[in-house]
Amino acid sequence: MGKGEGYCKVVAIVRGESLENVEQRLQQLGVPGITVTCVKGYGEYADFYSRDCMTEHVRVEIFTSAARAENVAQGIIDAAHSGVAGDGIVAVLPVSKIYRIRQRAEIRPEQFE
Amino acid sequence: MGKGEGYCKVVAIVRGESLENVEQRLQQLGVPGITVTCVKGYGEYADFYSRDCMTEHVRVEIFTSAARAENVAQGIIDAAHSGVAGDGIVAVLPVSKIYRIRQRAEIRPEQFE
Amino acid sequence: MGKGEGYCKVVAIVRGESLENVEQRLQQLGVPGITVTCVKGYGEYADFYSRDCMTEHVRVEIFTSAARAENVAQGIIDAAHSGVAGDGIVAVLPVSKIYRIRQRAEIRPEQFE
Repeated sequence: MGKGEGYCKVVAIVRGESLENVEQRLQQLGVPGITVTCVKGYGEYADFYSRDCMTEHVRVEIFTSAARAENVAQGIIDAAHSGVAGDGIVAVLPVSKIYRIRQRAEIRPEQFE
Repeated sequence: MGKGEGYCKVVAIVRGESLENVEQRLQQLGVPGITVTCVKGYGEYADFYSRDCMTEHVRVEIFTSAARAENVAQGIIDAAHSGVAGDGIVAVLPVSKIYRIRQRAEIRPEQFE
Repeated sequence: MGKGEGYCKVVAIVRGESLENVEQRLQQLGVPGITVTCVKGYGEYADFYSRDCMTEHVRVEIFTSAARAENVAQGIIDAAHSGVAGDGIVAVLPVSKIYRIRQRAEIRPEQFE
């Protein structure tokens, strides 16, 4: 599958405080839906070696077209960036198919544009 | 990798009220295990622009063979469909490998059949 | 993309009691960050047909280089193995890109080594 074809999943682990900013940016970009989960994280954003330092982060998951994935990822980076440790990460994963349950039908990639 | 070879992950975001229906359908299909997470969602199923309208949805994750993924996705669509906004989505993602920890061994795709 | 190139996501569903063991093993392996979510699971680790038997499991998600993914998966298997039903599963998924938000930059696969 070539660049820009098909679907992707963008998943971001960001600070809980950044969530509102990230949501607003995604609205501006016309993203039609996001899924938010509360998570505990270690790593960039926390002291991996101390259980007490687990920080409250959120996991934001967006299904989109491959053509838009880079744009969505950059929007999240802009909205969640503070420059200090703990800003989190954004990853882009390949997706084979997406269905909208209400319409019992596959969503075509161009419907995300 | 050709159609029907290897593994897939099926991930569905559905209403909390649909979960029991979805579970029953997956049992009938012989799905050996599912993972359920409570999530907050915006999009098809909620007013993206109003924080108050965040709805309670669940994220259902199933690892299966590529050969069965379409069947599992259709079963979820049937079980979670109500026809009104908020029914959610189902996505199918490629998976490279799956191990069963108890047996310290890779699960072969045909073991999902 | 050849074996060992690019990125992977390792996702494990393990018993809550195994989490500390898994974290220690991942530290020893030099994994720079993990994301932990509380989940409900059915399957290997529970009686799928009884709602009451839902067990408390955690979902551990690690983004890493494709070169390290197998090593990370084996580390989790070693740390979470007890030999009885409910030990859970580990899956490896392909990932297209990973960005570190603090640095507004893509993480190169070799930065995970």
